[in-house]
Amino acid sequence: MPKKVPRVVVFGELMLRLDAAGFNRFVQAENFTARYTGAEANVAVGLSRLGIPAAVVSRVPEHELGQACIDALRRYGVDTEFVLRGGERLGVLYVETGHSQRPSRIIYDRAHSAFSTLKPAEFHWPEILGSAGWLHLSGTAPALGAGPRAAQAAALRFARKHRVKVSYDCNYRSLLWSVAAARRVLPGLIEGIDLFLGTPHDAKTLFGIRGDPASCAQSLREKFSIRHVAFTLREGEHFNVNRLQCLLAGPDGVHQSREYEIHIVDRIGAGDAFAAGMIHSLINGRAGAEAVEFAAAACCLKQSIPGDFALVSAAEVEELAATGNSGRIRR
Amino acid sequence: MPKKVPRVVVFGELMLRLDAAGFNRFVQAENFTARYTGAEANVAVGLSRLGIPAAVVSRVPEHELGQACIDALRRYGVDTEFVLRGGERLGVLYVETGHSQRPSRIIYDRAHSAFSTLKPAEFHWPEILGSAGWLHLSGTAPALGAGPRAAQAAALRFARKHRVKVSYDCNYRSLLWSVAAARRVLPGLIEGIDLFLGTPHDAKTLFGIRGDPASCAQSLREKFSIRHVAFTLREGEHFNVNRLQCLLAGPDGVHQSREYEIHIVDRIGAGDAFAAGMIHSLINGRAGAEAVEFAAAACCLKQSIPGDFALVSAAEVEELAATGNSGRIRR
Amino acid sequence: MPKKVPRVVVFGELMLRLDAAGFNRFVQAENFTARYTGAEANVAVGLSRLGIPAAVVSRVPEHELGQACIDALRRYGVDTEFVLRGGERLGVLYVETGHSQRPSRIIYDRAHSAFSTLKPAEFHWPEILGSAGWLHLSGTAPALGAGPRAAQAAALRFARKHRVKVSYDCNYRSLLWSVAAARRVLPGLIEGIDLFLGTPHDAKTLFGIRGDPASCAQSLREKFSIRHVAFTLREGEHFNVNRLQCLLAGPDGVHQSREYEIHIVDRIGAGDAFAAGMIHSLINGRAGAEAVEFAAAACCLKQSIPGDFALVSAAEVEELAATGNSGRIRR
Amino acid sequence: MPKKVPRVVVFGELMLRLDAAGFNRFVQAENFTARYTGAEANVAVGLSRLGIPAAVVSRVPEHELGQACIDALRRYGVDTEFVLRGGERLGVLYVETGHSQRPSRIIYDRAHSAFSTLKPAEFHWPEILGSAGWLHLSGTAPALGAGPRAAQAAALRFARKHRVKVSYDCNYRSLLWSVAAARRVLPGLIEGIDLFLGTPHDAKTLFGIRGDPASCAQSLREKFSIRHVAFTLREGEHFNVNRLQCLLAGPDGVHQSREYEIHIVDRIGAGDAFAAGMIHSLINGRAGAEAVEFAAAACCLKQSIPGDFALVSAAEVEELAATGNSGRIRR
Amino acid sequence: MPKKVPRVVVFGELMLRLDAAGFNRFVQAENFTARYTGAEANVAVGLSRLGIPAAVVSRVPEHELGQACIDALRRYGVDTEFVLRGGERLGVLYVETGHSQRPSRIIYDRAHSAFSTLKPAEFHWPEILGSAGWLHLSGTAPALGAGPRAAQAAALRFARKHRVKVSYDCNYRSLLWSVAAARRVLPGLIEGIDLFLGTPHDAKTLFGIRGDPASCAQSLREKFSIRHVAFTLREGEHFNVNRLQCLLAGPDGVHQSREYEIHIVDRIGAGDAFAAGMIHSLINGRAGAEAVEFAAAACCLKQSIPGDFALVSAAEVEELAATGNSGRIRR
Amino acid sequence: MPKKVPRVVVFGELMLRLDAAGFNRFVQAENFTARYTGAEANVAVGLSRLGIPAAVVSRVPEHELGQACIDALRRYGVDTEFVLRGGERLGVLYVETGHSQRPSRIIYDRAHSAFSTLKPAEFHWPEILGSAGWLHLSGTAPALGAGPRAAQAAALRFARKHRVKVSYDCNYRSLLWSVAAARRVLPGLIEGIDLFLGTPHDAKTLFGIRGDPASCAQSLREKFSIRHVAFTLREGEHFNVNRLQCLLAGPDGVHQSREYEIHIVDRIGAGDAFAAGMIHSLINGRAGAEAVEFAAAACCLKQSIPGDFALVSAAEVEELAATGNSGRIRR
Repeated sequence: MPKKVPRVVVFGELMLRLDAAGFNRFVQAENFTARYTGAEANVAVGLSRLGIPAAVVSRVPEHELGQACIDALRRYGVDTEFVLRGGERLGVLYVETGHSQRPSRIIYDRAHSAFSTLKPAEFHWPEILGSAGWLHLSGTAPALGAGPRAAQAAALRFARKHRVKVSYDCNYRSLLWSVAAARRVLPGLIEGIDLFLGTPHDAKTLFGIRGDPASCAQSLREKFSIRHVAFTLREGEHFNVNRLQCLLAGPDGVHQSREYEIHIVDRIGAGDAFAAGMIHSLINGRAGAEAVEFAAAACCLKQSIPGDFALVSAAEVEELAATGNSGRIRR
Repeated sequence: MPKKVPRVVVFGELMLRLDAAGFNRFVQAENFTARYTGAEANVAVGLSRLGIPAAVVSRVPEHELGQACIDALRRYGVDTEFVLRGGERLGVLYVETGHSQRPSRIIYDRAHSAFSTLKPAEFHWPEILGSAGWLHLSGTAPALGAGPRAAQAAALRFARKHRVKVSYDCNYRSLLWSVAAARRVLPGLIEGIDLFLGTPHDAKTLFGIRGDPASCAQSLREKFSIRHVAFTLREGEHFNVNRLQCLLAGPDGVHQSREYEIHIVDRIGAGDAFAAGMIHSLINGRAGAEAVEFAAAACCLKQSIPGDFALVSAAEVEELAATGNSGRIRR
Repeated sequence: MPKKVPRVVVFGELMLRLDAAGFNRFVQAENFTARYTGAEANVAVGLSRLGIPAAVVSRVPEHELGQACIDALRRYGVDTEFVLRGGERLGVLYVETGHSQRPSRIIYDRAHSAFSTLKPAEFHWPEILGSAGWLHLSGTAPALGAGPRAAQAAALRFARKHRVKVSYDCNYRSLLWSVAAARRVLPGLIEGIDLFLGTPHDAKTLFGIRGDPASCAQSLREKFSIRHVAFTLREGEHFNVNRLQCLLAGPDGVHQSREYEIHIVDRIGAGDAFAAGMIHSLINGRAGAEAVEFAAAACCLKQSIPGDFALVSAAEVEELAATGNSGRIRR
Repeated sequence: MPKKVPRVVVFGELMLRLDAAGFNRFVQAENFTARYTGAEANVAVGLSRLGIPAAVVSRVPEHELGQACIDALRRYGVDTEFVLRGGERLGVLYVETGHSQRPSRIIYDRAHSAFSTLKPAEFHWPEILGSAGWLHLSGTAPALGAGPRAAQAAALRFARKHRVKVSYDCNYRSLLWSVAAARRVLPGLIEGIDLFLGTPHDAKTLFGIRGDPASCAQSLREKFSIRHVAFTLREGEHFNVNRLQCLLAGPDGVHQSREYEIHIVDRIGAGDAFAAGMIHSLINGRAGAEAVEFAAAACCLKQSIPGDFALVSAAEVEELAATGNSGRIRR
Repeated sequence: MPKKVPRVVVFGELMLRLDAAGFNRFVQAENFTARYTGAEANVAVGLSRLGIPAAVVSRVPEHELGQACIDALRRYGVDTEFVLRGGERLGVLYVETGHSQRPSRIIYDRAHSAFSTLKPAEFHWPEILGSAGWLHLSGTAPALGAGPRAAQAAALRFARKHRVKVSYDCNYRSLLWSVAAARRVLPGLIEGIDLFLGTPHDAKTLFGIRGDPASCAQSLREKFSIRHVAFTLREGEHFNVNRLQCLLAGPDGVHQSREYEIHIVDRIGAGDAFAAGMIHSLINGRAGAEAVEFAAAACCLKQSIPGDFALVSAAEVEELAATGNSGRIRR
Repeated sequence: MPKKVPRVVVFGELMLRLDAAGFNRFVQAENFTARYTGAEANVAVGLSRLGIPAAVVSRVPEHELGQACIDALRRYGVDTEFVLRGGERLGVLYVETGHSQRPSRIIYDRAHSAFSTLKPAEFHWPEILGSAGWLHLSGTAPALGAGPRAAQAAALRFARKHRVKVSYDCNYRSLLWSVAAARRVLPGLIEGIDLFLGTPHDAKTLFGIRGDPASCAQSLREKFSIRHVAFTLREGEHFNVNRLQCLLAGPDGVHQSREYEIHIVDRIGAGDAFAAGMIHSLINGRAGAEAVEFAAAACCLKQSIPGDFALVSAAEVEELAATGNSGRIRR
């Protein structure tokens, strides 16, 4: 290991995710599976399992559920030194898992959370980002309130000034803010970053860019001087089966991954696994087809795993990326 | 809400359904999931969730499992005032869920149940049906013995006389009575009703009507002066995947729904969901294509939900009926 | 049934209770058992199982978890007509069950709930209480905010004016409001009511009344012109074993129940079961020793049942109240 | 192994036992634990685990739940060659486990079972008992109907004639037959047997014998020319804690075991474990104090094990019988 | 039953199989499902359920997990008289179940097991195989060490000498031994046997035979004078869905079964079910197309059942073999 | 935090602990709860939760179960930098939980583990212990083989030389080595250490010291020049209830804690919790009565928590240590 791997820092909310057990509807559920999650934290866990040192910056309440967030991240090797303690409550994400023609339903209970009520001054970015090589952010933080928005902006300013690379996952959530609000805020955030992650639908609704996925990604690169734009393209008529293809537009053109038909165990966190795969590729100097195949394979594998975390090794991702095939039981 | 929604009354047996947990075979099962069910009661629950007031008329033992039947129906808003208490035992339905090429197996333990030993005089139909706009019955009740048969007949007589609309689900069960017995009894019951629910196979074996589904439904309408005949048409080579299409023959001709490929969570109660969807449509003045699409969507969605009850709202059914598509997670 | 049983109406918050499964600590929990609860609603369920018609007045969000609250109450026969829909979130009660020397821990996540943000004008007390014979309230509602406090006061005013009997459970919760605040508010609420429920400790800290339990109860009666004061007296060195004795001070003097040593399955809701038992006794014209034994037995039995609800019949309570003994398996 | 151990044959009903999971009441239960049981079969399993060859004679339906009965017995080494197949249904025993002051509740659903509708001629006792050294019966079989009563009588006649030793467990169940009926039938069955198992309460109500346990046991021996009478003496104020002492009256006088305070996991099958321990002792030539301590220890240990079967080795029983103490973890 | 069915004896290791619950990865698993398994024992259980008497010969430790192996086999009717007790430990097979593109992972912890350290002289083949009509072996035993290899060779010698028919499942496991080692050992073992079970891939890598499956099977028959060669042919891009076709080469030529698309519940034991189906067919005098369809249907049905055992009746297998179709729920 | 807390390093085996679910016996168990454990690692987790930085030094296999060990420790804040990867297998501890008079049973499957086959040279103690203030060891490591014994000795030598304080838990396990072997090895290891943890029974059998606990502890101190000797004294007739008292002999004499009657959830790890409490006290400058009460309270609380880890905060321990009482639910 001659080359030191740069450390990735993510900033975002941590939440309790409660899934109605089995395929029960909310009104039937007598048990909930508890997991701790957060779009940006999911990326950190994914990176850590792929071998990239990662740290989460966030804020959770003093109580034991706040502690459990920290424990969940530490378990998978993520640095939690900068997860602050304070605030009143932990945001909750209730999940009812869809199947066949029945869509999943999510009830957000995130308002007034420790993260959404953070004070930007609590985060000392020079200390936090001093040794970081990459900063990963997403579009949920600015949707959560003035505090997170200002803290994210401060982190971005520091990163730009000190040449920390930046990735930004669009992650537009209509339950958190309006399209109009997102259209005002997001352009200023993604200008000049190294990696933008989203979908052609985001490009159209939030940035007014139309066209087929490839040209749309290129337009987005040009319009905001972004180095790489990565899209996930999903289709599917059943909620438990999807077709997934990914796309990367970068300095060497546009590359598309193979298409996977995925039988889904848990689709939440798929985009975060894609982000982790893409950041892993770029940090390791991969580009183009190789990068997009790696990230697509990570995204694909995540969906076979319960919970939000992409608990896959780089070797596992590479094997799928290379062959598109699940192979056989090794025994 | 200017127009008052008519109340639907159903009459039928309530049972304990015990499912071998997971995909275990009966001989492996160390745990059974307990639910309370009944073909007609399932329709009542489905209607209640779709917004139609519904009441169940039945008979359960005095003991706590009898009480649990009542509680299960009340939970989802069904009126249980006319669920009488008495008799010795609650019928049991043991279910082993099939998968892939392995069919589901059901062990009926229904003989000597509180319902099958009811006394027809216990049910005072003028009081029960006085405020009802619709009466739903099915072909399991007359198969269960002289008492249920006579009580059902009395209910039918009252309904016909007082212009309460009547739906009748064929629900032929070979484990309960012979084809010959059903052929003697059923024709007298379905004469002149508003809605008959069944399959082309029922039409052929029980009423001697052949032909393609559409002409078969029309023949059935004509032969028995039935206003609407609704069929479910299923096909499939795997026990956990089915193709479903539905058909409605009425005064304005024959209409077929779109075809769904369904990845099944629990197929029991699908026909009851279809019945609930169809009754909901007719009560709300829908007909033809609109009615059959709504009922097909209800039938489809039910199969993604554990248990016999179609725990879906009218809005959810309408969204699927309109688009045929599961859409995306709302978040 | 010659004498019509008066209907009991309760007003209070409904919440989701999430218990860490097994004896796991919060930081270990991967599963939570979900139940719907509320101090006043628990009393309503207990009364309904004891044979007294009961209705809950509350406010829950529009979403499915709000619906699940309603379903949970209906299941056990409680009238939910006056559970309004609105507001942003459902309060959550996270429970870690103690054992031996380790105390239970509760994390309240109740702020900003649908109930705490209710508008008093939404509740039309003449309609709600018109047919009621008894109104049950508790000290949590005024602790939750100005809206609930005003709504509770309006209900009390109506009850006093129209001679609806009133019971009030002190239910002091230090996590919700300060002793000082409670001391300002509670005296005005309990003046002249028919039944006050609490502990000698409440009497001392909130109303400044000292002395042994019996004289303390009598002083409280006199100070606030309360007809009956009922206390639960608990002791115990292990969190899963308690000694319980109950006391009732009324017009005919002070009566104490036998003492139970209770091996606890779930202690939450014990006080609510006591309240239900006491209200049941008073409505049925029982007083003194008979009333306090019945209520103590209900309180005792509740603690052997998982969840907050006292799912016991009057016959079961009477058997224990009469003998103090669990008897044998009937078979 | 110089001395060949005689084979024990038992005759009795096999049932499905369904326990409401956890300490849930029946009306709360969404899951039932399934086990296969039967008073006499429990003795056979206990004997098999203690090292005595045992066979069950019974009748179960052709379906898979009948097969599961057989599988459950084979699993623990019991011979099932003479479990016949036939009849309509398997009897069911629903169990709600009591705790603290709340008693267990049992709902029997045994009527019309395969066993209760057996034809005595189906059982060829010369073939079945030809190689047997001991026959174990109980008082539930004659309570179940004319068929079982006649078959049991035929087995007894064969045993008496061919000097197969006989044990008979009183097992009086008020839900199955009246005291009056039992008083008519039982005396003829227990005359001259080698071992009677029951309680002083049985002796009083069924055979009119009063007095302290020791003299009562001796009177019973004399009145019916029984070689050994064994009693279990239980007391306890909590449903999950019992005090147990056992007593054996035989040719060498009356012996009482030590008293155990038992923290109960599952009390069903305790008497059957006692019977197995006693038969094991007598077959192995133990008598008096040694025999009753062994049987009491088996009865005690059974109650720490879920399910009806006494899955304990002779070494484990002997260790407890010798010391009265649970010892420590061996590691 | 005029013709007596020959008894099948199998020899092989018994293990504890621990599956990470749900689709959890090993690092997530907090619960493991425990089952007892072994390639050859699975065949014995399958045969027993199909109606053929079967016995397992093996060696397990003295402790309770060793006993549990025996109990698991007895439960399903297998003779365990020759499962010896001794050695230090039970081999463990940890299983992480794959899904979609994620392959299953197996961690073998089999070294130093009771079976791998057996002494060949402990097994007295004349006694064991004296009454046997068929001996089933597999390629895992010789891979486990010198002891098992010698014991298997001794069994084979006895069988050849006394005209006990022999089947041999290739079962090559790269985690147990190298291809080179297997190539040295296996040819000597399969020479002249009645049935060889494997895949074309085995034929190529272990015996150097190439070509399409049919010609490859015929070459294998000829090269080693084997009477029947049976292959399973699997394909599939998802780990939870496979296409399966089977092939049998025998004296009357090569026959292929229909192809199944299988939605997999548990794929482990599929090959053993195939072996059981094939042995069942040959013992019952079936050949060619009929035999291969029966075995393929057994293999297909097994994969819909949790655990390693093919818990299917001959009637169930025949129904699928005849129609290729899962039929409908019987009710 | 003016005074820097010294880092504690522990060295010992990590294992997979598999508990038969519920109170099932091994032969009944169909599910095992999986946890990762190790006597010394349990101390490290306990210290970490009490606020003392702790690191585990060990060796686990390369596979995912080895990784899961590391993850389990990291989750609770323990440093795992020096958990090496290598060797063939992870030791397994199968646990059957006792109850009432039935003792727990443990099956060790530890032979040939990654830890027992470690090479002492793999551990660079200057690097590992360079920054450590305390080294904790136990008597299981030298019992596991020559490698662990030598590595432990090397660690001890380094600690003695560089004035790292040393605690040693006797932890004698008769399943791992003989008393004779332990008597030869242990005296050399505990000479001159700062804290010895054990029982009076250890003192007698391993070091030949008799007398009442207090004098025995003092003799042990003197004989081996140990600064503190800490004993746990347990008694109890039920496996789920124990009486616990603890004792500390140090420079300021002998102090005994209060006695607790403990209703046990999980007794494994109680001694490790005691060790953690004692080390925490000594590091924080507590001595005598205060130290032994703190450690006894930690030991007591651990037994109310599932799993081996003492997941309690210093504040929780202090509250119990101060009052001996569990207090009440805080709400």
